[in-house]
Amino acid sequence: MTSVSEKNLKAVVLLSGGLDSYTSAAIAKSQGFDIYALSVNYGQRDTYELTAAKQIAASLAVKDHKIISIDLRSFGGSALTADIDVPKSDIGADTSLEIPVTYVPARNTILLSMALGWAEVLGAFDIFIGANAVDFSGYPDCRAEFLNAFENLANLATKAGVEGPNKFKIHAPLLDMTKAQIVQKGYELNLDYSISHSCYDPAADGTSCGHCDSCLLRLKGFKDAGKIDPLKYI
Amino acid sequence: MTSVSEKNLKAVVLLSGGLDSYTSAAIAKSQGFDIYALSVNYGQRDTYELTAAKQIAASLAVKDHKIISIDLRSFGGSALTADIDVPKSDIGADTSLEIPVTYVPARNTILLSMALGWAEVLGAFDIFIGANAVDFSGYPDCRAEFLNAFENLANLATKAGVEGPNKFKIHAPLLDMTKAQIVQKGYELNLDYSISHSCYDPAADGTSCGHCDSCLLRLKGFKDAGKIDPLKYI
Repeated sequence: MTSVSEKNLKAVVLLSGGLDSYTSAAIAKSQGFDIYALSVNYGQRDTYELTAAKQIAASLAVKDHKIISIDLRSFGGSALTADIDVPKSDIGADTSLEIPVTYVPARNTILLSMALGWAEVLGAFDIFIGANAVDFSGYPDCRAEFLNAFENLANLATKAGVEGPNKFKIHAPLLDMTKAQIVQKGYELNLDYSISHSCYDPAADGTSCGHCDSCLLRLKGFKDAGKIDPLKYI
Repeated sequence: MTSVSEKNLKAVVLLSGGLDSYTSAAIAKSQGFDIYALSVNYGQRDTYELTAAKQIAASLAVKDHKIISIDLRSFGGSALTADIDVPKSDIGADTSLEIPVTYVPARNTILLSMALGWAEVLGAFDIFIGANAVDFSGYPDCRAEFLNAFENLANLATKAGVEGPNKFKIHAPLLDMTKAQIVQKGYELNLDYSISHSCYDPAADGTSCGHCDSCLLRLKGFKDAGKIDPLKYI
């Protein structure tokens, strides 16, 4: 593990408010980075995620937390941003073969672009994203190949990257971990997962549904890790 | 010149409302593409550009025109988005050596990411951007190397790019043209440049200042092309 604690380096950390981004942010902090958390409200129907992001940012004592709005709903194309029903099912074997309808077009490209813009202003070169290739193998923008291509782009796109001497680095510490391993890592870091939010389709009071793909993956992760999810479910 | 008129292909065209993006959009149309214009209001102080974008979209009879807001001002870091004075000067020889303060961090990366998201929803594979490497040689994200890296990223980032058989293509038809050549091209295409807007620092009624770098480049372009800029100046 890289330690940067003596240098007190800045990292821009994408923070959705879910379990993965919380753990990713905590890993960045454990590596000694000063955290600049970036939450993007891309018109998702569920604002409980942003509330969770604020609680997580406070609990990790981030240096700054920005919430940027961008209305991707006007593009349509995803159950998370348009009026398409969120699927309710067990986690099928075919999630590794088909790209789910909850895929948001170019989402991670847009999120990383915004993180890059802020990083350049801050003089930061490290960007953390909670992308995971194991549970979301159907998402093209959750693969190492994509993240490497973005890192390459970042160093061509920016004044700071071109002029050097530092180079941008995209960190995806959860990329090859199972959900159980992510939960385990969070417990090692003493995280309070009751403040995170994963459900795609919560009740009006924010209670998680327990049946959407995101809830099922989360619950299975806790179970496989031998832990009890502190969240309330319907 | 590629002709796609029989196929009636869709193209997402980034349309700021300036002379370059107008010409870029018109070139896309002249190549037979159906135009889906995307204007991004990234918190620039000058909303006259967006008014121009609407007029241009109408005059080119685009299939759709979306204006997406994203508040890059909260990141700071540029004279176009923050409270830094826009420089008033002649075009100095050093514009080719230094990156001007009007550079917006990661701007073209963010704009292209958003265009990519919409393209994927539309089933479009062609994205046009009015980037120019001649007059803006100090901007890292106006270079062929950057645009090629983004094209590579687009085909790794998306369901459509990964699954094929089509591949995303980033078109930058103005990349190697001087401003005079761009103006000349616009006249060949019968464009009405009076509806475009280039000024970084217009008067309250929208009249161009004639002294900012953008106005000076534009005026020099018309002069070198042997044309008269139809815009009013203070």
